Amino acid sequence: MPIATQAITGDDKLSSLNLDYLLVRQTSKTLIENLSAEDCSLQAEAFVSPAKWHLAHTTWFFETFILLNSVTGYQAFNSAFQVLFNSYYNGIGEQFPRPKRHLLSRPSLNEVLKYRAHVDSAMMALSLSQQELLKDLIQLGLHHEQQHQELLLMDIKYSFFQNPIFPVMSDKPNWTNIESVGSMKFIPYSGGLKKIGAGSENEFCFDNETPAHQVFLENHALADRLVNNGEYLKFVESGGYEEPSFWLSDGWSELQKPACKKLPLYWQVIEGKWFEYTLHGLKPLDLNGPVCHINFYEANAYAQWAGCRLPTEAEWEVAAQSQAIPETREVGLWHAYGLDDQAPLSQLYSECWQWTQSAYQPYPGFKAPVGAVGEYNGKFMCNQMVLRGGCRLTPKQHIRSSYRNFFYPQDQWPMAGLRLAKDQDK
Amino acid sequence: MPIATQAITGDDKLSSLNLDYLLVRQTSKTLIENLSAEDCSLQAEAFVSPAKWHLAHTTWFFETFILLNSVTGYQAFNSAFQVLFNSYYNGIGEQFPRPKRHLLSRPSLNEVLKYRAHVDSAMMALSLSQQELLKDLIQLGLHHEQQHQELLLMDIKYSFFQNPIFPVMSDKPNWTNIESVGSMKFIPYSGGLKKIGAGSENEFCFDNETPAHQVFLENHALADRLVNNGEYLKFVESGGYEEPSFWLSDGWSELQKPACKKLPLYWQVIEGKWFEYTLHGLKPLDLNGPVCHINFYEANAYAQWAGCRLPTEAEWEVAAQSQAIPETREVGLWHAYGLDDQAPLSQLYSECWQWTQSAYQPYPGFKAPVGAVGEYNGKFMCNQMVLRGGCRLTPKQHIRSSYRNFFYPQDQWPMAGLRLAKDQDK
Amino acid sequence: MPIATQAITGDDKLSSLNLDYLLVRQTSKTLIENLSAEDCSLQAEAFVSPAKWHLAHTTWFFETFILLNSVTGYQAFNSAFQVLFNSYYNGIGEQFPRPKRHLLSRPSLNEVLKYRAHVDSAMMALSLSQQELLKDLIQLGLHHEQQHQELLLMDIKYSFFQNPIFPVMSDKPNWTNIESVGSMKFIPYSGGLKKIGAGSENEFCFDNETPAHQVFLENHALADRLVNNGEYLKFVESGGYEEPSFWLSDGWSELQKPACKKLPLYWQVIEGKWFEYTLHGLKPLDLNGPVCHINFYEANAYAQWAGCRLPTEAEWEVAAQSQAIPETREVGLWHAYGLDDQAPLSQLYSECWQWTQSAYQPYPGFKAPVGAVGEYNGKFMCNQMVLRGGCRLTPKQHIRSSYRNFFYPQDQWPMAGLRLAKDQDK
Amino acid sequence: MPIATQAITGDDKLSSLNLDYLLVRQTSKTLIENLSAEDCSLQAEAFVSPAKWHLAHTTWFFETFILLNSVTGYQAFNSAFQVLFNSYYNGIGEQFPRPKRHLLSRPSLNEVLKYRAHVDSAMMALSLSQQELLKDLIQLGLHHEQQHQELLLMDIKYSFFQNPIFPVMSDKPNWTNIESVGSMKFIPYSGGLKKIGAGSENEFCFDNETPAHQVFLENHALADRLVNNGEYLKFVESGGYEEPSFWLSDGWSELQKPACKKLPLYWQVIEGKWFEYTLHGLKPLDLNGPVCHINFYEANAYAQWAGCRLPTEAEWEVAAQSQAIPETREVGLWHAYGLDDQAPLSQLYSECWQWTQSAYQPYPGFKAPVGAVGEYNGKFMCNQMVLRGGCRLTPKQHIRSSYRNFFYPQDQWPMAGLRLAKDQDK
Repeated sequence: MPIATQAITGDDKLSSLNLDYLLVRQTSKTLIENLSAEDCSLQAEAFVSPAKWHLAHTTWFFETFILLNSVTGYQAFNSAFQVLFNSYYNGIGEQFPRPKRHLLSRPSLNEVLKYRAHVDSAMMALSLSQQELLKDLIQLGLHHEQQHQELLLMDIKYSFFQNPIFPVMSDKPNWTNIESVGSMKFIPYSGGLKKIGAGSENEFCFDNETPAHQVFLENHALADRLVNNGEYLKFVESGGYEEPSFWLSDGWSELQKPACKKLPLYWQVIEGKWFEYTLHGLKPLDLNGPVCHINFYEANAYAQWAGCRLPTEAEWEVAAQSQAIPETREVGLWHAYGLDDQAPLSQLYSECWQWTQSAYQPYPGFKAPVGAVGEYNGKFMCNQMVLRGGCRLTPKQHIRSSYRNFFYPQDQWPMAGLRLAKDQDK
Repeated sequence: MPIATQAITGDDKLSSLNLDYLLVRQTSKTLIENLSAEDCSLQAEAFVSPAKWHLAHTTWFFETFILLNSVTGYQAFNSAFQVLFNSYYNGIGEQFPRPKRHLLSRPSLNEVLKYRAHVDSAMMALSLSQQELLKDLIQLGLHHEQQHQELLLMDIKYSFFQNPIFPVMSDKPNWTNIESVGSMKFIPYSGGLKKIGAGSENEFCFDNETPAHQVFLENHALADRLVNNGEYLKFVESGGYEEPSFWLSDGWSELQKPACKKLPLYWQVIEGKWFEYTLHGLKPLDLNGPVCHINFYEANAYAQWAGCRLPTEAEWEVAAQSQAIPETREVGLWHAYGLDDQAPLSQLYSECWQWTQSAYQPYPGFKAPVGAVGEYNGKFMCNQMVLRGGCRLTPKQHIRSSYRNFFYPQDQWPMAGLRLAKDQDK
Repeated sequence: MPIATQAITGDDKLSSLNLDYLLVRQTSKTLIENLSAEDCSLQAEAFVSPAKWHLAHTTWFFETFILLNSVTGYQAFNSAFQVLFNSYYNGIGEQFPRPKRHLLSRPSLNEVLKYRAHVDSAMMALSLSQQELLKDLIQLGLHHEQQHQELLLMDIKYSFFQNPIFPVMSDKPNWTNIESVGSMKFIPYSGGLKKIGAGSENEFCFDNETPAHQVFLENHALADRLVNNGEYLKFVESGGYEEPSFWLSDGWSELQKPACKKLPLYWQVIEGKWFEYTLHGLKPLDLNGPVCHINFYEANAYAQWAGCRLPTEAEWEVAAQSQAIPETREVGLWHAYGLDDQAPLSQLYSECWQWTQSAYQPYPGFKAPVGAVGEYNGKFMCNQMVLRGGCRLTPKQHIRSSYRNFFYPQDQWPMAGLRLAKDQDK
Repeated sequence: MPIATQAITGDDKLSSLNLDYLLVRQTSKTLIENLSAEDCSLQAEAFVSPAKWHLAHTTWFFETFILLNSVTGYQAFNSAFQVLFNSYYNGIGEQFPRPKRHLLSRPSLNEVLKYRAHVDSAMMALSLSQQELLKDLIQLGLHHEQQHQELLLMDIKYSFFQNPIFPVMSDKPNWTNIESVGSMKFIPYSGGLKKIGAGSENEFCFDNETPAHQVFLENHALADRLVNNGEYLKFVESGGYEEPSFWLSDGWSELQKPACKKLPLYWQVIEGKWFEYTLHGLKPLDLNGPVCHINFYEANAYAQWAGCRLPTEAEWEVAAQSQAIPETREVGLWHAYGLDDQAPLSQLYSECWQWTQSAYQPYPGFKAPVGAVGEYNGKFMCNQMVLRGGCRLTPKQHIRSSYRNFFYPQDQWPMAGLRLAKDQDK
């Protein structure tokens, strides 16, 4: 890495922003170390994107919002990329149709890597005063790229899974599971007027976490760990998918579709035994591991079956505010979090995103930034549900109590599971 | 009506519940006075139902949840109706597929009216003690039927509209519009901890309005009247449907569908002039009347264009709590509300339902009733948006500040418009 | 009938064309004798039409192609009907969308009957010289109406079938089945140069039967009767729907669709017994009756399973040329044909249309008539298969050896079955 | 090539069948010379396949029908490939879903090339007596591979076209167009009893060309050359796509679909000028070149507009029987045919496939071979139209007068154009 850095900059004095930049950009490339150009082109459905596209789009973000906008004399690498790698920024202009991203065999993966190098050089060449001026946008670009790192992994998992030979992405040792074992305990939290949300401090946050504001909560309780595969299997085997009273109406409709397999996305029965597809290939289902790759309807139905409910995002956040974020270490491509035996809630940020019962809506007083960057979050505040926490694939900088992730309730391909909640009498 | 009542009961002593029952049941029949059996069979899309089906389903509700459940010796009118006229109660059993309701030419409208009479007789024959015991369910059945009265009218409007001869349902005088004229004023409301929701009192409410609970509001302001057609026309003519920055992402996607006409549902341009289809036929567009039959995406986009936002449901309810409900009188099939010049907000309950920016979600501590009746509201608490107020077609008993109506954000066929809101500094 | 005739004409001297006209027009009305206005509005899928629409469209045909075109001073009954009841004549102008025909509650059935009377009066008022001049078009109109009589019955059968109470259209005695019993015999026919097709004679035929022309046939053999239900049931029970080698590729694809029930359209299993829905209600499956309401793929697969093939339309026609058409009598709404014990092939025109292996294509030298009437047949000569013979619902004037019926290979709702054929060595 | 041959066989004595084998197999690899592994994975729609898949599937054909069936001790390269690369042979077993072929990043292109080498070695190792025994299947495999060579090129053209940068597959010199210039002449042919079809001789043909048989033709005339781009442009500019009388009903329906661009597939208007996408990139439209990449409906509509019709396949074949096949030479990847000034019809086999008006149906007496190989042609004999001749991409061994190509009438992506025909009085 130091060598690469020097090659890019011809300089060994790097600002801290430069260092952050290089680190994040390098990580994206590390993710595809074991992938061929063919692997990097896979797109099984419109809602996932090829790894190559992620690499190019995150680069487009820096080129579009920083270099072309603010750097005199910057030469675009290829003007066609303005359209090809725009995801959804109508303010910037036309977009290449999302379902066809797998059809861009040209530019090749090599060409995209050159595009990255071209943009990286220009970014490294920014003067300190330019860096200062553009700091917010650069940080946004880095957090944006980290979101795509996580997506890249979820996406390729989904695309690989369509291949009946169950491709192995990485044979590095798997993370050490923080297993969801032992009887589940419910930790009580008292209600009242609480403050959630971020902003105004010096730390980075996305616009959708702002403004910080007050909410009134009732007394409630949260489970001390995530629901595990063994528990979910009981729900399956007791006919949970056949009993309508557990299901939201739209969820029940999903179950009636002929293609619905009525199981977590990556579960497989082979000769009467349960397996789960992972980025390490097909593995026997770990009954103590957290159930993962279920959609909101499934999470909600499980909670109903268990006589509980899902937490609201505010309940989750207030509880999380009171715990420290545990130490992280990298295991292969993933993150593993240490156990904090003192903290009431385990598995808060590790393992898998946690569906809440909260629809993704603007916080009171929310204002999207002006201009195309304003399309980042606000325009998705409809029809989606909030998830909290983080997962094994989430970059460490994205671990914070106020972070709001969001997906459609029918989405199974995000790495998402659930934590139970309960109302609590006073 | 007194005669009909006597004919049914053979008695001139009616309990107040009996009287309510007869009144509501009679009103449903009044709605189809001008409709033929052919008209009553129309179903233009799966989301609307034939008038005949509404008449039968509301009857099925009393038969299923009261007579068959609790009245010894009650003989079902026709056992096939248990499936044919079940809407969505999985707890009761199978349902005839919703998109095919228009295919039930048998039973005929006449047969359905006999079904109604059969059930009405049995209901009228309930002893006072039975009535007392079943009071909650009977009242639920009556409010259920009133909801269907409103739906029946919205539905047939949609189905009639598919006919290029623009059928007239009623040529009785139209209601006196409470016109949305004069410059719009914004009424300020201070924030703080407020109480919304219903329950525990003696008045009827739906389960989704419970429990009453506290919410924290920021300072804000609400427009004193609804947005009118003339104002919405300016939005249209200034290119509002072509500018993505006003639109939520899913709303923008709707606009890209080839069938989307990018106008309120019933607006028509004929030889360069604007018209609107109504249940009184095609009429020149009333620029001072409230814009109506727009979906949530359109309401939200208009608000963005106007530099405002939609109110939350809590903001709306708190403001409504402080105003009396104006007097009503019937004009033909509709309701017209008197003006209360003292009240800060006009058109609160009349004219058209008002889209809020709130997703339809359970209130804290919400519990759906046990059994099939529990499917009434709770299972729809996903993917839909709350509307508040009422419309010209809403029965008077459904006018209250805590009432939560809900539709999908893409739905244009409900009679819905919008009231603007704004954040307010302290 | 004579009274009705006088009522229409005020005259007891009727031309033979007038008499034909009145007879055909009266028959259409007879078909709906037992149907309510609600029944007459049913349209279960875009490919079937409401009975009311058939009654109006056949009237539109006379009004459009004869009265409006050629009769000075004729006043259209309602100018909106030009669009509403145009089926597919682009040359005439716009058409109301086919899938929405069930949405035309206005005009009512009564209004449509008045439309019929209005047009009938004008047609009866044509002078003899006008009749002579317009003879070809009038005859086309009458044959057109007879085709719609058959369609009206097939269509309402399909729409009624969607209703789980299995409506009875007619309880008049069913026809006497000419049962498909006894062992099937194959009648040999020698090949050579043969003449098929119609035209140039004085008898009516459709344009698609012209011109008469020569075809070269190989030696072959045709089954002396249709395949019966019992035989088809063996195909079903031996796994015929699961064995791909019997099926054309597109037929196999149809079978993979989740909604495909892999049975003749109207077969039902109820408590382990086989039933068939008919216009007389649900009846136990008659194992000796001809199998009916199968599509081309099913007919072809059965033939493959039986080690045979379907006949070509030329083989069928040449064989039919050599047999007289048997006597007919009406049984309720249907036709029953007498048995001709001398004729080699039975059930040629009665019972059900017979799928051939011939694609519906123009005969050599075929020219569609000029003008909108030219859209009658020619533009459908792609993607459809020819059926020969006739069925229980076919008007007697449509029974001839050169008649070419045609449907899409996936269509099950026509009353169609099959006759087997074989190659024959010299 | 000789060196490669020796490398494979370790032998310089090769049977003529071995030589044919090596030549055909080598050609497939030559086609992808300029393509990356990413290019070889493209699949824009279910009806086209990735180049990599073509390379694997043609290899699968030899492995499945010859090596695994008949060669003792042959070890399959990878047993998973039996499912992955089966196209549509239900007799062999399951198939990987066609629309997902682009998702097989594993096996990689390199792995597929190893698969080819593995199968090639085994095929080269067949003894002369084995070759003699399996000759028919080997030849079928080679012709099968040649069909896929043509498809591979048509398919990648379609997939490349989705990329807005218009990828260039080959910058080798284009073929010398045999231009469609000069006034079009109609060559008269007399009717009568003619013989068409193939078989019984020593030359290879597909089963669908058999048996040879007699047909009766009327007098007719065929255009001496194909319709060119300039002529087709006149059809476009005169409103041909807007006039329903030129169109078959199903073709007119295609035009109403929002995505239909109402032009030959690869035509583009850029700043008011006409261009055509080719495998050499985007080129100005050559008005003298034959119009290409139109579907059957367009070919038929053009013929109607021109007052003509399409030829039947029998008319085409009889005319072609009387002309010699011109000399060929390779130009880059394509074939160019010399002009034979003596022959009445030019462009018979070169340039583009010619739509006929004949539905693809079995010849009288046609029997599909027994077993899975019998699925090759017969099961597609429904809903498709016959094309005759050949195109620039057609391997030379596939040029013969009896060859029957077939596609669906809506298919634009085959390289197909048209030759006009006319009825002719005696």
